[in-house]
Amino acid sequence: MLKIEHIGIAVRELSQSVPLFEKLLNTSCYKTEQVESEQVATAFFKTGDTKIELLESSSAEGVIARFIEKKGEGIHHIAFEVEDIEAEMKRLVSEGFVLLNEKPKPGADNKLVCFLHPKNTNGVLVELCMERK
Amino acid sequence: MLKIEHIGIAVRELSQSVPLFEKLLNTSCYKTEQVESEQVATAFFKTGDTKIELLESSSAEGVIARFIEKKGEGIHHIAFEVEDIEAEMKRLVSEGFVLLNEKPKPGADNKLVCFLHPKNTNGVLVELCMERK
Repeated sequence: MLKIEHIGIAVRELSQSVPLFEKLLNTSCYKTEQVESEQVATAFFKTGDTKIELLESSSAEGVIARFIEKKGEGIHHIAFEVEDIEAEMKRLVSEGFVLLNEKPKPGADNKLVCFLHPKNTNGVLVELCMERK
Repeated sequence: MLKIEHIGIAVRELSQSVPLFEKLLNTSCYKTEQVESEQVATAFFKTGDTKIELLESSSAEGVIARFIEKKGEGIHHIAFEVEDIEAEMKRLVSEGFVLLNEKPKPGADNKLVCFLHPKNTNGVLVELCMERK
């Protein structure tokens, strides 16, 4: 785990939350991106060496819509940048962690990603991510 | 907001979660600290330029115990490092955010801290923190 690459925050409406986080962080949103495979629209902010990623569901059945229905808006996941995602996945499985996807999959921001099951991480949804080459 | 200083994670028992996060992050816990005023025991891990802070309640009535009772273990807050905490508190109030403490108070890790009400931040508990001089 090299660093915290971003923190993902589930929100109902980017149109309201982007200006809110611009005020909070005192910085402008520098990118928005649709991730069709995950049924989300995303908006990114830089803060130091890390990013804040706001996530709005683009479908009533999407994972973010279901998260908000269950828990309300709020922090959804922490993403750690790794140097070699397959090696890190292998290491974590050998330590007893459970992967939510067995192979790295494309995520937002030109990344390959893998999620860990939160039942083994004290309820924290952890994402591994690595820049796609 | 200079950067994400740490992410606070509420856990039931540091004795179990410290070894778990050592495996997850592949790094050793470098500090533990009791914060009597907040009724918590804390354990810190470095990840890049940011820290992970595990929080165990030292009292059944403490804020972390109540959080876990309501929501289960998981991410509790995001702390942003600021250069001048009083100036940042003033700026945020002028933007419509609500402070949970009107004056900076001592937190873990030799910091002065202030929390924002999550009702105005999409459910995210935000901490401002500044190194005590």
